[in-house]
Amino acid sequence: MNRQRILILGGGFAGVYAAMRLERRLRRRDDVELSLVSRENYLIFQPLIPEVVSASIGLVDTIAPLRRLCPRTRLYTREIDSVDLTARTVTLRPGVRPRPVVLGFDHLVVALGNVPALGDLPGGREHALPFKSLGDALQVRNHVLNVLEEAAVEIDPEVRRGLMSFVVAGGGFSGVELAAELNDFVHEVVRDYRGLDAAELRVVLLHSGDRILPELDESLGRFAHRLLTRRGMEIRLGTRLEVATATGARMSTGDRLETRTIVSTVPSGPNPLLQTLPVELHRGRVPVDAHLAVPGLDRVWAVGDCAAVTETRTGRPAPPTAQHAIREARCAADNILAAIDGSAQTTFSFSSLGQLVSLGRRSAVAQVFGFKLSGLFAWWVWRTVYLLKLPGLDRKLRVATDWTLDLVLRQDIVQLKTDRTSSISAEHFDEGEELVREGDFGDKLFVVRTGRVAVSRRGLDGRPERLAVLEAGDYFGEAALLDVVPRNSTVTALTPVDVLTIGRGDFRTLIATFPALATVFEDLARARQNSPRPDGRE
Amino acid sequence: MNRQRILILGGGFAGVYAAMRLERRLRRRDDVELSLVSRENYLIFQPLIPEVVSASIGLVDTIAPLRRLCPRTRLYTREIDSVDLTARTVTLRPGVRPRPVVLGFDHLVVALGNVPALGDLPGGREHALPFKSLGDALQVRNHVLNVLEEAAVEIDPEVRRGLMSFVVAGGGFSGVELAAELNDFVHEVVRDYRGLDAAELRVVLLHSGDRILPELDESLGRFAHRLLTRRGMEIRLGTRLEVATATGARMSTGDRLETRTIVSTVPSGPNPLLQTLPVELHRGRVPVDAHLAVPGLDRVWAVGDCAAVTETRTGRPAPPTAQHAIREARCAADNILAAIDGSAQTTFSFSSLGQLVSLGRRSAVAQVFGFKLSGLFAWWVWRTVYLLKLPGLDRKLRVATDWTLDLVLRQDIVQLKTDRTSSISAEHFDEGEELVREGDFGDKLFVVRTGRVAVSRRGLDGRPERLAVLEAGDYFGEAALLDVVPRNSTVTALTPVDVLTIGRGDFRTLIATFPALATVFEDLARARQNSPRPDGRE
Repeated sequence: MNRQRILILGGGFAGVYAAMRLERRLRRRDDVELSLVSRENYLIFQPLIPEVVSASIGLVDTIAPLRRLCPRTRLYTREIDSVDLTARTVTLRPGVRPRPVVLGFDHLVVALGNVPALGDLPGGREHALPFKSLGDALQVRNHVLNVLEEAAVEIDPEVRRGLMSFVVAGGGFSGVELAAELNDFVHEVVRDYRGLDAAELRVVLLHSGDRILPELDESLGRFAHRLLTRRGMEIRLGTRLEVATATGARMSTGDRLETRTIVSTVPSGPNPLLQTLPVELHRGRVPVDAHLAVPGLDRVWAVGDCAAVTETRTGRPAPPTAQHAIREARCAADNILAAIDGSAQTTFSFSSLGQLVSLGRRSAVAQVFGFKLSGLFAWWVWRTVYLLKLPGLDRKLRVATDWTLDLVLRQDIVQLKTDRTSSISAEHFDEGEELVREGDFGDKLFVVRTGRVAVSRRGLDGRPERLAVLEAGDYFGEAALLDVVPRNSTVTALTPVDVLTIGRGDFRTLIATFPALATVFEDLARARQNSPRPDGRE
Repeated sequence: MNRQRILILGGGFAGVYAAMRLERRLRRRDDVELSLVSRENYLIFQPLIPEVVSASIGLVDTIAPLRRLCPRTRLYTREIDSVDLTARTVTLRPGVRPRPVVLGFDHLVVALGNVPALGDLPGGREHALPFKSLGDALQVRNHVLNVLEEAAVEIDPEVRRGLMSFVVAGGGFSGVELAAELNDFVHEVVRDYRGLDAAELRVVLLHSGDRILPELDESLGRFAHRLLTRRGMEIRLGTRLEVATATGARMSTGDRLETRTIVSTVPSGPNPLLQTLPVELHRGRVPVDAHLAVPGLDRVWAVGDCAAVTETRTGRPAPPTAQHAIREARCAADNILAAIDGSAQTTFSFSSLGQLVSLGRRSAVAQVFGFKLSGLFAWWVWRTVYLLKLPGLDRKLRVATDWTLDLVLRQDIVQLKTDRTSSISAEHFDEGEELVREGDFGDKLFVVRTGRVAVSRRGLDGRPERLAVLEAGDYFGEAALLDVVPRNSTVTALTPVDVLTIGRGDFRTLIATFPALATVFEDLARARQNSPRPDGRE
């Protein structure tokens, strides 16, 4: 029997609801095979992600296992390596075994969503935390608790204030929800930190437009703005994040904010796989016709955030929300079956039902069926709607329980360290920032990749004396790796600088493994000894 | 005013209960300063850790924040770098700033516990999962779900059975509790994996002694053994894990088990810091006198798992349990205050109250005040005792809720990926194992550190032909990193082999950063081209 193979790429709302629709309509048929590829084995319930930061709801309650949502679909929890529309195959990256998997298909549903695009921002990839996945939320939580722990033992008041400042970039839905949650969270938990003053906490929301929540009616945006400001949040309009470094954020206004926490929620970029498809993207999205098929391609459909769908009522591009993804998924699923059965295609038509934004502490703003709501009632609507939307009774029950407990219990400050074992990493420094300070603990080697740095040391008169200028390709800090010594000089960025740092453990391993590398550092040490004065590279 | 400074090292039960006792007794005094150093900002409730694997209770409900347990103690969440008993200082590792912190003390409480000791086992550090911290439990959970996901898409039946086999080493308390929980968990969730057969699941418990749970009465150990065997678990007595590799476990009996999951709960080693103290350790523990002070040292006390305390009744070393740690902590705290105030010292005396072991699925074995219990009633006692022991009302409430929901809801299969960014890692292969197979996806470079490997390729007649033997210092697999190609040869271990692997991304970064390294590989490529036949290093 020649079974039709439908392959869905992506495990977000679009992909999963397409699979669910197909499963439901194919219940009594076995002439169609259904497969889905997803990086995670669960569907993330995005609107609840900010609550993970404060642990208001349990970690796993924001997500639903794909195997339970679509039990009759063959699930591949893998990354996608490539799509070949000529051979009609999709190649998946290897899993525990280094063997790629190749899947053939008759119908392809592209539901790849988008990916965080921190790469455009100098220092973004290195120092700004993305906020999209559950892992991101967990990392933000751990990071926030980590800087508070550090602040509690920090003696330098300026450094302490930097540790207690939090910057959220992006004043859209997710930026506002995250900033509101974060603001509540740090003010709640700071009481547990002996010696920290709540007045030193700063949560700053940066937004490039002239009002936050541009997706909503202006009056609701203003309501949210006033409410959040009253709760101590700083909102800077007309301000973009321009440079992120380990110790601060520089903004488009030229101001610099001392902070150790920069979370970016600015709109993300398209999945790189889309660019490999033989179609011209519309603003990073795959073009689709009225039936959600990709014009010019054979039996390929695109739905969700990665598809360029137009909203019927407004004529504008459909916003990247779950309600749109779900409607598109259902329509595409129906049209695939119509194509298989040779029946008529359905035209996609849907306009937004409404929008809800949580502002933390029992308040929200909402715009539902044309009505505008704000405050406690909007919050109640928010909770109720999301509880109803959560897939599965067990999730509903768990979340309802969490929320109930949360009304009576205090928030948690336990920090789940997910150890980052990698010690080869990239860092970005803005002009004038210190890479290394005299007297610091030396725990890594620096390799300058771009830019220039100055090495200086305090002379006998206590004044800093410049010893050398280092450029791309130069190393420093290697001596401290071979013997634990404090840094004997200060290194300052003369221009924006990108460096690669290698921690002590990996450095020693590499030196032992590659004798050629050991020679490089021996030569450097010799050159330094022969030089008329210490060159300050430690 | 000359305040006495008490410094506690370690945030386990011993350290935290010492701080709690001191806080309580110092409530109306401000002549004593209290500090505690802990790697985490929470106390782990060890007996509940296995339940994290099945997510029966929420992640953060197994732990209690230190700042709430001892709010008047100055908490340093840092690693300890060194202890100097002459200068009477403790140096902490740097945090977000590379600056070490030095703490002075008058009285020092050593409560450093012990650390997992996987290093003695060949391949242990590389391929066996430790099971001690909350992070470990989370990693075991994710790993188990990962291999099930992989098994669901694996076509080779032998590899699939290896993916569905789980080995737990160590038949003491934590090994038995973990194995029981794991056995229940995989049998419960396998139903969600289409195409996986529950009959192929294997959970194997290895124990070197002649009965499991040696800490308990023999009849209880036998009861547990029978019960777990009836639930499908394999228990191998008189069997030690000898070698762990990526694909299997070799045991002291010479048998080899194909598995991708080896969890080790075998007794852990002493904290390396203890060896830097100027005392002779007793079987890895710090000697103490009847007042829990360390003989020969000035005002230094040791409590908990790291202290060599003798149980009064039995005359045997006190077991590493929370109940002992807590009693020791209270006694030491009282004696420190007595030393400060010049009053009489208390002699430590305590014998175990009882032991409880959960066997999963509403059964347990217990030995309490001399009574032996087993089955459902023991399980009820187990739950009740631990619920009462949990510090804080909010934790009690949350765990009670979780347990109640767990009675009605199904277990979760969502997998929380904590991304391991490091791609420089060590691997161990046993004699005869394949490091690389012809046709595999090439994603990393191998450097042989010890042992020898054979490179072979399938000839025109389909039979493997040996091309080369590589030894310590040799590299292979580098070609696949510069261009994505399948491996063109198979590499097999001729002896036990330790290799260092470097993933594509880090390899390219290193090559770009260190020209000397690039030269090494260019030379290798040239040598290979000039050789009369391909040397098989790809």
